[in-house]
Amino acid sequence: MRNLKLVVIGGGSSYTPELAEGLIKKHASLPIKEIVLADIGDGREKAGINGDLLKRMYRKAGLDVNVWVTLDRREALAGADFVVTQFRVGGLEARAKDESIPMKYDLIGQETTGPGGFAKALRTIPVILEMCRDIEELCPNAWLINFTNPSGIVTEAIHTHSQVKCIGLCNVPINMERAVMRQLGVDSTRLHCRFTGLNHLSFITAIYLDGRNIIKQILDSPAVKDEVVKNIPNVDWAGGLLDALGVIPSPYLRYFYFEKQMLAQEKENVRQGLGTRANEVMEIEKNLFALYKREDLDVKPEELDKRGGALYSEAAVSLMDSIWNNRSELHVVNTLNRGSITDLPAHSVIETNCMVNAEGAFPLANGPLPIQVRGLVQQVKAYEELTVAAAVTGDRSKALMALLNNPLVHDVETAQRLLNDLLEGHRQHLPLFFPEEGEG
Amino acid sequence: MRNLKLVVIGGGSSYTPELAEGLIKKHASLPIKEIVLADIGDGREKAGINGDLLKRMYRKAGLDVNVWVTLDRREALAGADFVVTQFRVGGLEARAKDESIPMKYDLIGQETTGPGGFAKALRTIPVILEMCRDIEELCPNAWLINFTNPSGIVTEAIHTHSQVKCIGLCNVPINMERAVMRQLGVDSTRLHCRFTGLNHLSFITAIYLDGRNIIKQILDSPAVKDEVVKNIPNVDWAGGLLDALGVIPSPYLRYFYFEKQMLAQEKENVRQGLGTRANEVMEIEKNLFALYKREDLDVKPEELDKRGGALYSEAAVSLMDSIWNNRSELHVVNTLNRGSITDLPAHSVIETNCMVNAEGAFPLANGPLPIQVRGLVQQVKAYEELTVAAAVTGDRSKALMALLNNPLVHDVETAQRLLNDLLEGHRQHLPLFFPEEGEG
Amino acid sequence: MRNLKLVVIGGGSSYTPELAEGLIKKHASLPIKEIVLADIGDGREKAGINGDLLKRMYRKAGLDVNVWVTLDRREALAGADFVVTQFRVGGLEARAKDESIPMKYDLIGQETTGPGGFAKALRTIPVILEMCRDIEELCPNAWLINFTNPSGIVTEAIHTHSQVKCIGLCNVPINMERAVMRQLGVDSTRLHCRFTGLNHLSFITAIYLDGRNIIKQILDSPAVKDEVVKNIPNVDWAGGLLDALGVIPSPYLRYFYFEKQMLAQEKENVRQGLGTRANEVMEIEKNLFALYKREDLDVKPEELDKRGGALYSEAAVSLMDSIWNNRSELHVVNTLNRGSITDLPAHSVIETNCMVNAEGAFPLANGPLPIQVRGLVQQVKAYEELTVAAAVTGDRSKALMALLNNPLVHDVETAQRLLNDLLEGHRQHLPLFFPEEGEG
Amino acid sequence: MRNLKLVVIGGGSSYTPELAEGLIKKHASLPIKEIVLADIGDGREKAGINGDLLKRMYRKAGLDVNVWVTLDRREALAGADFVVTQFRVGGLEARAKDESIPMKYDLIGQETTGPGGFAKALRTIPVILEMCRDIEELCPNAWLINFTNPSGIVTEAIHTHSQVKCIGLCNVPINMERAVMRQLGVDSTRLHCRFTGLNHLSFITAIYLDGRNIIKQILDSPAVKDEVVKNIPNVDWAGGLLDALGVIPSPYLRYFYFEKQMLAQEKENVRQGLGTRANEVMEIEKNLFALYKREDLDVKPEELDKRGGALYSEAAVSLMDSIWNNRSELHVVNTLNRGSITDLPAHSVIETNCMVNAEGAFPLANGPLPIQVRGLVQQVKAYEELTVAAAVTGDRSKALMALLNNPLVHDVETAQRLLNDLLEGHRQHLPLFFPEEGEG
Repeated sequence: MRNLKLVVIGGGSSYTPELAEGLIKKHASLPIKEIVLADIGDGREKAGINGDLLKRMYRKAGLDVNVWVTLDRREALAGADFVVTQFRVGGLEARAKDESIPMKYDLIGQETTGPGGFAKALRTIPVILEMCRDIEELCPNAWLINFTNPSGIVTEAIHTHSQVKCIGLCNVPINMERAVMRQLGVDSTRLHCRFTGLNHLSFITAIYLDGRNIIKQILDSPAVKDEVVKNIPNVDWAGGLLDALGVIPSPYLRYFYFEKQMLAQEKENVRQGLGTRANEVMEIEKNLFALYKREDLDVKPEELDKRGGALYSEAAVSLMDSIWNNRSELHVVNTLNRGSITDLPAHSVIETNCMVNAEGAFPLANGPLPIQVRGLVQQVKAYEELTVAAAVTGDRSKALMALLNNPLVHDVETAQRLLNDLLEGHRQHLPLFFPEEGEG
Repeated sequence: MRNLKLVVIGGGSSYTPELAEGLIKKHASLPIKEIVLADIGDGREKAGINGDLLKRMYRKAGLDVNVWVTLDRREALAGADFVVTQFRVGGLEARAKDESIPMKYDLIGQETTGPGGFAKALRTIPVILEMCRDIEELCPNAWLINFTNPSGIVTEAIHTHSQVKCIGLCNVPINMERAVMRQLGVDSTRLHCRFTGLNHLSFITAIYLDGRNIIKQILDSPAVKDEVVKNIPNVDWAGGLLDALGVIPSPYLRYFYFEKQMLAQEKENVRQGLGTRANEVMEIEKNLFALYKREDLDVKPEELDKRGGALYSEAAVSLMDSIWNNRSELHVVNTLNRGSITDLPAHSVIETNCMVNAEGAFPLANGPLPIQVRGLVQQVKAYEELTVAAAVTGDRSKALMALLNNPLVHDVETAQRLLNDLLEGHRQHLPLFFPEEGEG
Repeated sequence: MRNLKLVVIGGGSSYTPELAEGLIKKHASLPIKEIVLADIGDGREKAGINGDLLKRMYRKAGLDVNVWVTLDRREALAGADFVVTQFRVGGLEARAKDESIPMKYDLIGQETTGPGGFAKALRTIPVILEMCRDIEELCPNAWLINFTNPSGIVTEAIHTHSQVKCIGLCNVPINMERAVMRQLGVDSTRLHCRFTGLNHLSFITAIYLDGRNIIKQILDSPAVKDEVVKNIPNVDWAGGLLDALGVIPSPYLRYFYFEKQMLAQEKENVRQGLGTRANEVMEIEKNLFALYKREDLDVKPEELDKRGGALYSEAAVSLMDSIWNNRSELHVVNTLNRGSITDLPAHSVIETNCMVNAEGAFPLANGPLPIQVRGLVQQVKAYEELTVAAAVTGDRSKALMALLNNPLVHDVETAQRLLNDLLEGHRQHLPLFFPEEGEG
Repeated sequence: MRNLKLVVIGGGSSYTPELAEGLIKKHASLPIKEIVLADIGDGREKAGINGDLLKRMYRKAGLDVNVWVTLDRREALAGADFVVTQFRVGGLEARAKDESIPMKYDLIGQETTGPGGFAKALRTIPVILEMCRDIEELCPNAWLINFTNPSGIVTEAIHTHSQVKCIGLCNVPINMERAVMRQLGVDSTRLHCRFTGLNHLSFITAIYLDGRNIIKQILDSPAVKDEVVKNIPNVDWAGGLLDALGVIPSPYLRYFYFEKQMLAQEKENVRQGLGTRANEVMEIEKNLFALYKREDLDVKPEELDKRGGALYSEAAVSLMDSIWNNRSELHVVNTLNRGSITDLPAHSVIETNCMVNAEGAFPLANGPLPIQVRGLVQQVKAYEELTVAAAVTGDRSKALMALLNNPLVHDVETAQRLLNDLLEGHRQHLPLFFPEEGEG
């Protein structure tokens, strides 16, 4: 049997024990021999804590797996079979800026959608493309499973500007599907959801229960409103929106359909001193790592569930299993469109049901998008394509065009001032926009 | 020679003398024998005034043309060669509502773009489709030249739901091109502009001067900022927007690129008691018709230029000439896409350079839209397609989806309340949405 | 558990025991309660023999299944869950004409490809569309699994002209994939083939062994030449054709790539008194039914393997299982393109890897066809679309255009004379072309 | 006024006086100051004769134009405004081979269509791409008007593999349109034909007479049969072919629709000692140049009309006029598809009605091809694309695939042997296929 080597970039992430739990459960069919947690200087301590915890977890499971930690990415990558990326350029401090700077202009502050996601993409893409250069050299057959947000944009950058074999993953679709299953009281042998769209902009377009498409019957149900959408403060989906849409949107669509209400809520949180989600997560992480350090902990602690990211591990591990064992199973992932959604360019990265085997992810043909959501998906895709172009060139005009194409930005003057603030705020992580400086 | 008969629907419009002036100038190649001014009861007086003025104008020109006025549309249409539509369902009172109701929700109030244009489309489409039923029966070979706004959406409704031969026309492109000529001091033998997009959402993508595309050289010039855009209160196009866009937008793009500033200006106007554009136009029209009545007036009065609509007549008459004389000339008009813009459906109506001959308008192949504007054009096209679907069915869900897809509407709750207000405000002109009532 | 009812149209086919064998093997997951063998008058005796044999087979298997035979199609269809079509309009006599008439003009005589397949399509399509009318009325939720050749064209006719849920099936892809497995000595857990194209015009474009695409390594191997292609007299695939193609063609491509040699062989067979394949099959069938009648026979006899149709049963039964149990597995079937092959219309029926569940077959996105085969596939698809149009209208001009578009027909004059001969030869089975007559 | 310089590559062609005649007629709007006749060694004498004749023609016209002859292509190209290509690699001797080698295999021998055109493309493309390198360097703003056959394939090679501004031209469309005019007794102010397809594979899809599409009325008329198709020995278009097609094919479609009859005729010609068309043309050319030499000749001699190429000059000169004077007129030319024909790739070169101005040729949107001809056009386009790929690489596998995709080649074995013969026969002109040798 081959010596299966997995590298986690951003090994200091608090999600790492979640991933390990999934790997241990699936060890029989995905027999990992070596796990490398790679991180940069700032993540050294957390990566070390994770490394020790993983060793205890594998020991408890009775599995002989070589877990080690390194700050040397190239050393880590050599000979890898899978590379999982879960790093965050600039850490939670940068996330706090992504969430707060747009609010200065009365715009949504969110780390994956809107101007916040845009800034995160500008920071992340040059870094991940550098990694891709290493992967092309050191482990050209490895599969890159990208979790780093905004996952769809980052995956499009990789497909456009590297030769690396990459699939973008997000836990939103699997959570939506599971919520539907819970509500209907059925399991995956009887239920199957069809997804179409982009990452954090996807839609369930059909729900097959025993092969009958029942989406119309449950579209506007309290079940869908209460359970399919989670992890984000509530807004009122009442009033026939879902019936009129005819499809079930990802919870992230709240930012587009309820922009005003979401912004009011964000502002109220700040007024109450609750701060942004970044502040909340910093607190959670502090507690988590205190826990991870305990020598008597040798399983994933329940407290991790508060962090979000539910089913992240299950999605990632079953995806790797489908690749490694060439299963030709269906997964909802981010990959090249290649004609699947006829309203989008062939070179766009989309999020949809794909057949996954050892050769990669192949989307089912979708045909045209539902007219109710076609325009929004196309508008956001144009924004994404422009964002990639801005990130790889450091061109301010392209960056302005990208921001202006984001549906959560409404006028050029604000876009110009906001762009300036975002670039200045993240200056040390944007060397292409500030070429005269070295990176901080 | 054939007995060329022209019918003007909305013959009581203050633009009618402008149209007549153009017809008189081009009489040699477009030899009209009969002009019918048709209108409904409310327009009876104005149509009568126009009829008398036109008779004086033709007398002065020494041309023997039979001008008559009628309230019976079917009598007017029988045997027509051209039908020009310039009517407004609900008149300027309805326009005032289109402009003021959205402002209650802090949204742009404009009669062709945004929620105002949406409401106008809902009122207009069922009426024009009824006219099309008459045309199919009484003059099936006639060409319908549609000027009624929103011209692109109305033209798409006609192409989708009737057999009538129709071209949608707007004076924005010809005015943009003339402004470019004026700035460069050249005439149409040396200059040619390529337009792409939708009505009131079009862009000059290339400017050929003696066959060299010089758009990059003049994109961001004061000339373009000052002169290409007119008739709408000023905003600041400075700061590199045009350079970044790489194309020259129609002045109506201000509502999208400067939504915040345009809204502030509209509110300031109201605060100063200036009222909406509808109020302004009512005043202008009162004065115009007082003038038209004067027995000594036998030419188009200069005062009409204030009304806007510059070059309307030239565009319409040269288009009819190209059809009638089968000239295969190029005009910028609204017609079916048929693959010309590869990012839009084949059945969409677009505004672009078309070859026009007796068989109709055939767009030049455009290929993909510039990425800078692709998303916006696609988003607006989805809004337009949904608006047509709502207008022909009276379905409130479709109407909600249409409004929600308009880039100037930002959240579902506002969309729902605004939709309610618009429907109630125009209740008497929306029989499909209030089927229990007769039309007022 | 639901009372699963299966109807076999053309129940007198010699393949019926093969189908039954597969159903018995898979009974646990596909629990059939009732099998109806429906046929027309000419098939009465054979259907009866099959019915008795199936009863003995089920008895031996210890399964309680109600097998019955009828000449009343509507009685058979009422309440069906699956309808399998394996009938042949005009029987083997008509096949003999399909194979011999073209040879009079020095053209390939084959029952699915070329003019023979064209004639078969003209006879079959009106009959199957009549069945579809019955299915729409009597069992609208039933799935039609179409085996009747030319399977792709017939399936396109059903998708275009009925509401029936239909998947077209052919045993060529599964046999090609199995041959590759045999050659490589691996099973389906390690190997996966990607197919693209049309029925009897499909190509393996990738072979994944443990997830690596190895097609280039085995393309031009004797293994592929000897084993992937079977059931049809041999021609020489040597000389670099497969290397140049870059894909592995279905054996039916011999008629296109070796037209001259295949024609020579057909003529030599006739010269030697061997007759056409139809004559051969008649002989085989006579022997088979003699065998089927034997009271002591209660399993599928080995002799059936000579008839061709290997793996027919396995393909059909596993497809029905995937639908019935909503498995979302991959099968190579014929269904609507919907953008999967970007070089073909969305409404075309194609043969490719599809996800199959209770809602139907959904093709994987293929993107563009390999340039080496793109033109041929497009040419044949145009022929197929024209053939459907001719079959449903009885229009001789459309029929002439269809024939002329078949790559195995080379000039108009021959096409005209051949068309005449085919129509006359099958006159009694072509009522739409001879409307003054009743059907024979 | 600019110093307009025109370079004729292949200046020794017998067509040169025809071109000069057109230039003289249009001199007022296309004021040429300099004409260079460039040729290679073999053409020296003929180019010299042409140069002297042109000087006499210009003198007679009273125009001061500098006509000179050179064997140095680079000297000729420097500073050119227009480059017209009418050269033939290998001369009429090579043409004779193009026409005779295929006949050894019972295949059509024709210099632009079928295997002959394929061989001509292989010889021509590397030579013209070398010229393009010179043009890119020495006159990058020049327009290349390509007449060298196969004009569509050569133009596609230039668009795909160079930056040169190029339009491909052919005199077939203008001759077809004029024939229609003659038959109807009308001129171009009343008649307009729509063309779609590829070079030597185009179709009139609509004929607008005073704006009514009358194609259905004249499709199957003797007029169309007798007059629209000329210059090629007759076959019988009777029997409803044109009615069934619904469009009027270019005369070159005879080779596809009447392959058998055309081949028989070619063989009969050889049997009667008439030889191929190349032999005929050699004879005509000998007589023409004897005439051109006469000092008293100072106009284009009538005898040139026998050579074919009618209206060649008019088409070329009015095209250059439309470019030079930025007229935005319509011409039927070969240029990039860019979405115009939705059934062909955007990067394909097509032949259709285009708006031509100083920036180039922009096709009208065609939408889908008529189903009757869609498959053939797609098949031939695949052949063309493969031919370009073979010509620029010298790859025998690609060449085999190209030949096999030509609808006039019917089996692989013949294709292989024929390919070998063609490559050997033209060995000295195919350096990429015989890299070890220098060019002869």
